[in-house]
Amino acid sequence: MISKNQIKQVKSLHLKKFRDEEKLFIAEGIKVVNEIVTTNPEIIQQLFVTETYLKGNSNVLPENKVQYTNISEEDLKKISTQSQPNNALAVCYYFEDTAPETDFTKHFSFYLDDIRDPGNLGTILRMADWFGIGEIFCSKQSTDVYNPKTIQSAMGSFLRVKVHYCDLYEVIKKNTPVYGAVLDGENIYNTKLQNGLIIIGNEANGISDKNLKLITHPVTIPSAANSTSESLNAAMAASVICSEFFRQLR
Amino acid sequence: MISKNQIKQVKSLHLKKFRDEEKLFIAEGIKVVNEIVTTNPEIIQQLFVTETYLKGNSNVLPENKVQYTNISEEDLKKISTQSQPNNALAVCYYFEDTAPETDFTKHFSFYLDDIRDPGNLGTILRMADWFGIGEIFCSKQSTDVYNPKTIQSAMGSFLRVKVHYCDLYEVIKKNTPVYGAVLDGENIYNTKLQNGLIIIGNEANGISDKNLKLITHPVTIPSAANSTSESLNAAMAASVICSEFFRQLR
Repeated sequence: MISKNQIKQVKSLHLKKFRDEEKLFIAEGIKVVNEIVTTNPEIIQQLFVTETYLKGNSNVLPENKVQYTNISEEDLKKISTQSQPNNALAVCYYFEDTAPETDFTKHFSFYLDDIRDPGNLGTILRMADWFGIGEIFCSKQSTDVYNPKTIQSAMGSFLRVKVHYCDLYEVIKKNTPVYGAVLDGENIYNTKLQNGLIIIGNEANGISDKNLKLITHPVTIPSAANSTSESLNAAMAASVICSEFFRQLR
Repeated sequence: MISKNQIKQVKSLHLKKFRDEEKLFIAEGIKVVNEIVTTNPEIIQQLFVTETYLKGNSNVLPENKVQYTNISEEDLKKISTQSQPNNALAVCYYFEDTAPETDFTKHFSFYLDDIRDPGNLGTILRMADWFGIGEIFCSKQSTDVYNPKTIQSAMGSFLRVKVHYCDLYEVIKKNTPVYGAVLDGENIYNTKLQNGLIIIGNEANGISDKNLKLITHPVTIPSAANSTSESLNAAMAASVICSEFFRQLR
């Protein structure tokens, strides 16, 4: 059973303010919860599961020695961030702050300059995970990695890809190639790419002026000759660029 | 002023059932509405704009001879599909059904096999627009192109990229190369691609069995050697594949 006080406390984590105070976030759904239980059980502070969950996943929790609280579907609806909750909700501890460790002479990564859409950030984490990028960087004004929509769209990738919030100048060294996705750069398909950092701009305004100055290699995804489209979605642009770096450098 | 009856009628278009009955859909926000007004005013059945819209866009409607109804922010909130409506809402006629016209010996396009997320469909329309793809195909069970979330995430691309709902066999001819994004196909970066049709599967279940059989060229976006990720988001996979086709064939 969940108490009224617990309901109130979990619900408070829907808001960034309280997440930051408590250093706790919510991850939901059978698939993601099972992934946490099997790979990162130590981040679970509380776990709520329905009878339906227990029937379909009877071995998962005992095998991983994870404690849980039974919850009715009605109560789950009260604490869930989703309109149609999916039988399991974990309250998890924030990840530890660690120092960035990407060696840009050997790897490439992304710097998201004021990315605002939590779904875009989650999708980019999933992409980074696929292409073997272990950490990405975000400007301090970017959307919150612990936003329920980010966690949801990242699937389990938030467990594997670290996110650092910092200014661009803190990440790059003197000789780090800094690529920027802009509208008038070199055609990315014709550019010989090196490992380095790739800046993806804000959904509406692109890359900020102060970061534009730090770009050493402006690159562009060319549009078709017959296209009148103005822009690609930020996550789609990131995936096209990531794919091209991966193709050339893997 | 908008009448109570009009409010009711526009609100009914939030649901597919009524959209299909009336053959009308909603497009919202200053940017998209201005794009419709300037490029496709003929699809507007009714246009509602706030004072804020009129102040900032005083010439757009008269120049394009488009009729409109003033609406208060309060009433706009009642008919809007968004939690934070953005000053303009157009009720638009469905596009005419036309016969598919892609010549797969000269162009490539996508077949979305039960794509369910309206945001994914919208993002794919935006991508298609960027890469000059004039029409895409969807299985009949796929999400609705007129869903407000599809329209919103497509930006203006729904005006330029046609969507046909049909079975796969209706689209392809005997010699059409049919690519399918699967987990055990040929590495797409090492495949010499031709123009043809590319199948993207459902977000959870991939490509349906009946369509798997029609694939002539199974292809895969390789993941990094160190990755344990299971899959890419459907729209991201589509964008990576589209980019690679574009790079090789443009």
